[in-house]
Amino acid sequence: MNIIGIAIHGGAGTILKSTMTPEKEHKYKKALEEALMEGWSILTEKGTALDAIERAVCLLEDNSLFNAGKGSVFTNEGKHMMDASIMDGETLKAGSVSSVRNIKNPVLLARKIMDNSEFVYMNGDGAEEFARLMNMKFEKDEYFFDEFRYNQYLKALEEDKVQLDHSQYQIKQKEQKKFGTVGAVALDSNGNLAAATSTGGMTNMKFGRIGDSPIIGAGTYANNKTCAISSTGHGEYFIRAVAAYDVSALMEYKNFSLEEACEEVVNKKLVSINGEGGLIAIDQKCNISIPFNSEGMYRACINSERDIEIKIYRE
Amino acid sequence: MNIIGIAIHGGAGTILKSTMTPEKEHKYKKALEEALMEGWSILTEKGTALDAIERAVCLLEDNSLFNAGKGSVFTNEGKHMMDASIMDGETLKAGSVSSVRNIKNPVLLARKIMDNSEFVYMNGDGAEEFARLMNMKFEKDEYFFDEFRYNQYLKALEEDKVQLDHSQYQIKQKEQKKFGTVGAVALDSNGNLAAATSTGGMTNMKFGRIGDSPIIGAGTYANNKTCAISSTGHGEYFIRAVAAYDVSALMEYKNFSLEEACEEVVNKKLVSINGEGGLIAIDQKCNISIPFNSEGMYRACINSERDIEIKIYRE
Repeated sequence: MNIIGIAIHGGAGTILKSTMTPEKEHKYKKALEEALMEGWSILTEKGTALDAIERAVCLLEDNSLFNAGKGSVFTNEGKHMMDASIMDGETLKAGSVSSVRNIKNPVLLARKIMDNSEFVYMNGDGAEEFARLMNMKFEKDEYFFDEFRYNQYLKALEEDKVQLDHSQYQIKQKEQKKFGTVGAVALDSNGNLAAATSTGGMTNMKFGRIGDSPIIGAGTYANNKTCAISSTGHGEYFIRAVAAYDVSALMEYKNFSLEEACEEVVNKKLVSINGEGGLIAIDQKCNISIPFNSEGMYRACINSERDIEIKIYRE
Repeated sequence: MNIIGIAIHGGAGTILKSTMTPEKEHKYKKALEEALMEGWSILTEKGTALDAIERAVCLLEDNSLFNAGKGSVFTNEGKHMMDASIMDGETLKAGSVSSVRNIKNPVLLARKIMDNSEFVYMNGDGAEEFARLMNMKFEKDEYFFDEFRYNQYLKALEEDKVQLDHSQYQIKQKEQKKFGTVGAVALDSNGNLAAATSTGGMTNMKFGRIGDSPIIGAGTYANNKTCAISSTGHGEYFIRAVAAYDVSALMEYKNFSLEEACEEVVNKKLVSINGEGGLIAIDQKCNISIPFNSEGMYRACINSERDIEIKIYRE
């Protein structure tokens, strides 16, 4: 069997050991391990990279620890608005969805858009209509309710400040937020790459703001020629930098290694425009790179040649 | 004064001389000339590339000949949903908006998002709320009503078929549609590049579909290091190809000329995935390239070293 591998993330940002308890740390690591190993088991049974990343992202969406699916934060209007995208490195087909409510697993909707529509990107009510036609699972508002996130929301409302996951703003408060975008990338036994990303946006988000998660080229990109990428961080900067595709372009056009391309995009280009965050990347040879320029990033990976790694802080 | 230039487009697709009358052709050429020359006059008065493209796109949006702003087509629900984006090559700042209704000039809203918010991309009702805060001009539904487009919509409803601007589908009918995305790119006397794109989507569009026009990297991209790009065509393929940024990446990473990069993206990469359409491009040296792989493209350009060119068909 060819070499196979998978990497996942649960968000990057200001994640400080000083404000984490051993219990919380354990919960995060356990959740990451479960999602990773479910994806991994699909790969070891000769399943596709697409199925593996979809499954891993679903598990992260189903866990209220992460800001995606069930754990999505509250917008300014007290709603949950979710975005997601997925891309198939073999066909360059892609599916994206933004501003949807009550969809249990936005990543599954992105997959349905890719597989069962002539479109790449659907939004809002129209996307929900398509989801109903596809018999996708909806959940009531209560399913997405989380007291911790609700209190964050009330606090943010009070401060009338749009909060980014783990932003610098939060360092000042000496307080740690426990949420973030989620994503997965994988290489399967047929040599196919795939990537997916899902998010619940920003607490107290206004004006129908959309970040990089549903944007093919910024939040998600996969191409068998090069690599598969899922981004997490301050979305505005990842959009302006076309961050996910840029890693691929550096490999294809400048013959950069995966690691060199990731370093260039995350620690040079994004840093030069103050773009905080990171990404997970895997290439055709099953190299895995997980660069980030923030304090920490919830992350895990495994491949045929290396043991499982689950990390949170800078090491 | 440094060399300056501007190029605009009013959509690419199946535009056949055989189905065009001299009167219609004259109307299109006059509209293109007016928009181009307004943008050009801003550049000759040492105005910025951003102001020049914004003005040119506004004029195209205000003309019901083109599928953007006033001339936007009808969605499946009989509404007009508009998308637009803008990018500044000097700062790499960008603004995007999708699924907005009743905004007179979506490109002006994209500019306001870039200049007056911490976000890059706003959508739907939330974006309209921001537009009201910015005192932007709204128009009633009647303003966007056009009998020709309404008849297209009724016909499409009947055929229950989502129609793409000037698609192959329409060749079969031996009938010509007169609508399209609009866009502009320019280089100003300070050496700054900028690009903008605006669209009214697809007739009988369903499921909240969003194309490439509001996507930075696909529909619009500008970077002083390389070039400014505005795309038009079958948006799904431009998203998957990250078409606008790809032209820039080929120039930056492979030292391609503007023309070589445009040729590679439009006539090789897009063609290989059946992506019909074209783009307008201008670089730091004021080279202008307007490649398209469709039958025709409404287009016009001018720079300090060449006379005005206004074309519709393949020549």
